[in-house]
Amino acid sequence: MSDIDVLVSEVGPRDGLQNAKQFMPTEFKKRWITAAAAAGLREIEVCSFVPPKLIPQMVDAAEIVAHALTIPHLTVAVLAPNLKGAIRAMEAGAQKITLPVSVSHEHSLANVRKTPDQMMDDVRRICEARDEMPKDKRPKIESGLSTVFGCTIQGEVKESEVLRLAVASMEAGCDEVGLADTTGMANPAQIRRVYKLVQAEIGQVAGLHIHNTRGLGLANVLAALDIGVRTFDASLAGLGGCPFAPGASGNIVTEDLVYMLESMGFRTGVDLEKLLAVRQILSEGIPDEPLYGYVAAAGINACAR
Amino acid sequence: MSDIDVLVSEVGPRDGLQNAKQFMPTEFKKRWITAAAAAGLREIEVCSFVPPKLIPQMVDAAEIVAHALTIPHLTVAVLAPNLKGAIRAMEAGAQKITLPVSVSHEHSLANVRKTPDQMMDDVRRICEARDEMPKDKRPKIESGLSTVFGCTIQGEVKESEVLRLAVASMEAGCDEVGLADTTGMANPAQIRRVYKLVQAEIGQVAGLHIHNTRGLGLANVLAALDIGVRTFDASLAGLGGCPFAPGASGNIVTEDLVYMLESMGFRTGVDLEKLLAVRQILSEGIPDEPLYGYVAAAGINACAR
Repeated sequence: MSDIDVLVSEVGPRDGLQNAKQFMPTEFKKRWITAAAAAGLREIEVCSFVPPKLIPQMVDAAEIVAHALTIPHLTVAVLAPNLKGAIRAMEAGAQKITLPVSVSHEHSLANVRKTPDQMMDDVRRICEARDEMPKDKRPKIESGLSTVFGCTIQGEVKESEVLRLAVASMEAGCDEVGLADTTGMANPAQIRRVYKLVQAEIGQVAGLHIHNTRGLGLANVLAALDIGVRTFDASLAGLGGCPFAPGASGNIVTEDLVYMLESMGFRTGVDLEKLLAVRQILSEGIPDEPLYGYVAAAGINACAR
Repeated sequence: MSDIDVLVSEVGPRDGLQNAKQFMPTEFKKRWITAAAAAGLREIEVCSFVPPKLIPQMVDAAEIVAHALTIPHLTVAVLAPNLKGAIRAMEAGAQKITLPVSVSHEHSLANVRKTPDQMMDDVRRICEARDEMPKDKRPKIESGLSTVFGCTIQGEVKESEVLRLAVASMEAGCDEVGLADTTGMANPAQIRRVYKLVQAEIGQVAGLHIHNTRGLGLANVLAALDIGVRTFDASLAGLGGCPFAPGASGNIVTEDLVYMLESMGFRTGVDLEKLLAVRQILSEGIPDEPLYGYVAAAGINACAR
């Protein structure tokens, strides 16, 4: 990533679609991923390997990964909530697998019916399964710590628990740890405090996944940028949320994130005009879903860049 | 302001209403100001002294100021675009008068039909008129430099011009200088750069007035907070915009700003629950205007504070 300063990881096809009410036809998903990569996005979380009876939207996960793997210079990322899903993801050829580990005990039970420590057992087994693969086929595995900054079900989430599970993730064999504000409850001071705490223990933290529930999304990005975080998840048109965290809705908007980063002088590799045009695919593929985004509404203004 | 860390200056009754399509009945304006002060806001820009034939919404300016002056512990601020308006404001008893000085030559001509330097002549005359008043009646005068971070009409705005007009404002007799992102084009890196530049020359810059046009409002607040800015304008429910800066709409939302500041540990003196309830007055007084705000939509979450 020498020609970019910040990696914008598009999670719309996974986190966005996972919570969409409409099924997006497989051909539209492929068009979206192709167009997003053509706009310059280097990493896309293209789907999750969950039981289709739980989330019918992800029934075509393997086909989507196969398509995404044909696109040059794209890291094909997926999410897998358990060992079975992770094995399916590896078989499909995913290049990066994020394993969601809820730091909130209550959210973990609601989301995957396991405690955080039971989830860590799964993480360990998944890393072992990865190690049995031929070296050149092994995906990168990220422990995606979620509900890090607060939980709508449990309330407070202890920073000591975040730290404990971050360390446990690395010990279990993960390549990296990311922090997720699943519930949109983080504030900039907290972002800086928690990142510094975790970074001091395990070294660089991979990325930040935030929701814009209370409007602090880009302020939280700035807080993380200031202390050296260089990977951010975002969702085209702000699609997404979490069905098990009531009131939590909407990833930060990829277009607005790219606008902020580029206007500050950070190179993202993304062509914002091209990216804005990708919204049309969403309008056609899931016409009932609301699309968000300030830059899309106001327009790019050349002299702000 | 010893019991608060950050001054949130509510500008909705001026900047918000100025651009509303509906006239808000005078009684609703009074109820709004009373309720906002009761929620803990210490400074409210209650109206502007402009010719009513240009902005009919402000026809009751003197009556609104008279009402606001009856509220204890409230700084009654107004805007005045010229000498005549400033004299009316002083006669009405305004405690703080903001004089808008567009740094963009083109925006200045469009907004007040004067060049920035012609506007500075007005600023000087207004300060002289203030000095002729009895000492205990003199309002604080702020030079509100606008279009500081970019102009939708002119394009780029030179930082050297911002600096020149900030210095000229202090020399003309202003008590303070504020910077306004009238067009919503600022980014956090630019905020920090321009503030440091101006602060190095004139000392502390009073405040920041930003629009959320491209979604960067609260990130820009954070950028300014980090370098010591402690006064921010905002508008209840995000009302506002600028009719002469096409595409520029919406002040940052007071409720979201207060939420961010309080969650970070800054005391604002504002009771967020009470402030959210004030939105009801807008819903009733100008029912056709859209109300914005993430916290209002998602709800406050106690454990994020």
